[in-house]
Amino acid sequence: ELLLGQIADTNAQALGVALAEFGVAHYRRTTVGDNRERAARAIREALGRAELVFTIGGLGPTEDDLAREAIADALGLPLETDEATLDALRKRCEALGRPWLESLARQARRPAGAEMLNNSVGTAPGLVVRHEGKTVVALPGPKGEFSAMLKEHVRPLLSALSGTVIVSKVLRILDMPESMVESAVADLIHSENPTVAPLMHAGEVHLRLTARAKHRADADAAIEPLADTIRSRFGAKLFDDEPAATILQALRLAGLKLAVAESCTGGLLGETLTRVPGASDVFLGGVIAYSDEVKASLLGVARTDLNQFGAVSETVAIQMAAGVRRALGSDYALSITGVAGPGGGTEAKPVGLVFIGLSGPRGDLAIERRHGGTRELVRARSVSSALALLREELVRG
Amino acid sequence: ELLLGQIADTNAQALGVALAEFGVAHYRRTTVGDNRERAARAIREALGRAELVFTIGGLGPTEDDLAREAIADALGLPLETDEATLDALRKRCEALGRPWLESLARQARRPAGAEMLNNSVGTAPGLVVRHEGKTVVALPGPKGEFSAMLKEHVRPLLSALSGTVIVSKVLRILDMPESMVESAVADLIHSENPTVAPLMHAGEVHLRLTARAKHRADADAAIEPLADTIRSRFGAKLFDDEPAATILQALRLAGLKLAVAESCTGGLLGETLTRVPGASDVFLGGVIAYSDEVKASLLGVARTDLNQFGAVSETVAIQMAAGVRRALGSDYALSITGVAGPGGGTEAKPVGLVFIGLSGPRGDLAIERRHGGTRELVRARSVSSALALLREELVRG
Repeated sequence: ELLLGQIADTNAQALGVALAEFGVAHYRRTTVGDNRERAARAIREALGRAELVFTIGGLGPTEDDLAREAIADALGLPLETDEATLDALRKRCEALGRPWLESLARQARRPAGAEMLNNSVGTAPGLVVRHEGKTVVALPGPKGEFSAMLKEHVRPLLSALSGTVIVSKVLRILDMPESMVESAVADLIHSENPTVAPLMHAGEVHLRLTARAKHRADADAAIEPLADTIRSRFGAKLFDDEPAATILQALRLAGLKLAVAESCTGGLLGETLTRVPGASDVFLGGVIAYSDEVKASLLGVARTDLNQFGAVSETVAIQMAAGVRRALGSDYALSITGVAGPGGGTEAKPVGLVFIGLSGPRGDLAIERRHGGTRELVRARSVSSALALLREELVRG
Repeated sequence: ELLLGQIADTNAQALGVALAEFGVAHYRRTTVGDNRERAARAIREALGRAELVFTIGGLGPTEDDLAREAIADALGLPLETDEATLDALRKRCEALGRPWLESLARQARRPAGAEMLNNSVGTAPGLVVRHEGKTVVALPGPKGEFSAMLKEHVRPLLSALSGTVIVSKVLRILDMPESMVESAVADLIHSENPTVAPLMHAGEVHLRLTARAKHRADADAAIEPLADTIRSRFGAKLFDDEPAATILQALRLAGLKLAVAESCTGGLLGETLTRVPGASDVFLGGVIAYSDEVKASLLGVARTDLNQFGAVSETVAIQMAAGVRRALGSDYALSITGVAGPGGGTEAKPVGLVFIGLSGPRGDLAIERRHGGTRELVRARSVSSALALLREELVRG
């Protein structure tokens, strides 16, 4: 399957990350088609180079699913049926009211002596085969099943093999360019253990902290002070969890309601907030004021200001926020107006120029940002800036 | 790099797709770390099995970029400098006002006799080495550069090698479950040439038509009648291009304006429309009426109807569309109200139940949909249903 390129090889990527984390040297990855002989040859060659070999895919019930056979061939082991697995497969089939097919029994086959790995998501179990000092681990190809097995079986296996426990934590920073985040943690980024790795996500910069230790408590003890150091450098712009959910929860606990007024983001801020299940007890809604006429009629932005300062201006951002707060009767309101591009920029108001407005119990304000990137990125970064602005206001409270 | 799992191997996937399209048998993919000896051994082994070998990555200017060396080692060829490339690199550096670094000259190195492949996106050229009946093609790793080179050099090369031209076309179907799309084209899906392959995209089903022929005109001639057959089966639910852009363009040509009122999608419909650059001459904006109070106060939905029928109902969908059309003065308006989940469902109004309203010059109506999937999918499918509903209305016009 992989060879035909229909599926991105994200499983192998996730496995590579896990191996690197546990410090397991990883030399080679080979992809073969659904051919027993070629697969067996690839596994045999891999066993000639490495102590630990993983196979991904080929564990399903069809005749194309050849991982079990190929591993047995490569190790010179016979195939046998694992009766407990066969029994579990039959019971599952019965419980679902489906007819039993003889082909399903393939999933209970294993190279003699192999240990079955329970599949908590699908039907095909994985396998661990230990033979003459070598270990072959067979994992299923479907992404959900692979991920579950990576977490439940492979990471503990790697942890045991390497005598290492790994703890990681992701901190999210909003409303700050990647380069500025990197320079703020430049002294930490080359540390070996724990490590700090910056990653770009649409409109956010993520810092992934990873600690390796012999015991869980030691890894935690290494991560926490580092996380605190980083938290102290970014303040309210840093989120431990999903930013929209964090803000909604803070408002919920204070019994406060939120509304939004969006121009260049066209609904992305509202969409981001309502991606969080249960947003409705905090988020009332908003106005997508894409045209100037809507800014004036629904939000009460002064037409004279629209004419004098333009829609992309501090005063219009403030009036949009105040207007939607008034119209919807919310405690807080956020607004976004800017030039998302690629067209529409001028020398005075270039693509990426955005004003974020905030209206709340303590008054109204707006901030100016100059975001880089494509239309999509300018919009995502504007939403991040808006969320960070509200977070700062709430933290100050 | 790939071995450490930092980058999903989407390049190899894209190459696999291209090879499959041109009918080039593709047996094995191997990934190695940045090690000259191991890379050379992997290439040598691959040349023992295949006539055509691709390498991806390792063409940059750093000492870790070892593809040129590994290929030369594998083929037993000396390395030489390509003077024309060196000259071009120097000129490029000069034009950018950057100092010339001796390390940059690495990018002009090649196994003796190799053909350089121009890189239209970055600096490192690719290579084609033909030696003793075998061909090695070296491509850069950065995604943009790889994609450009795949299109500009590899596809023509594969076309020449296989004597085959490939044409493909994607048709997008909205507001229809995948299973229904598949059964509507069941008679076409097993055809060999042209082929029809269904693919799920958030809220849409894509049908990819691919034809292989000796000449471009023959491939086109095979695709077009097939596309017409499929178009006739789906009518206005089928889009040749990006749906939001298609609808905005149809409205633009007719001089018509659009507004939206969103409940469970929380801004996703507006966001989808405004993802299209230049949406502002058609799309006026809308109201995110997440709470019932906003539906009543800003959109004029009757409170008695909200109480009697609930927010997720045909009548409320119709009143939301009519209300936003009136409030914003648009020609057409779309509304969405539903239960996105995961919570909030009841027996009478289960998760996935959505009403889409349309208000326009010929009157108002609403349709009911029962979408499956996660919160995210229910929302994406609701937006697709709304776009399809407006398309049908415009086509009828």
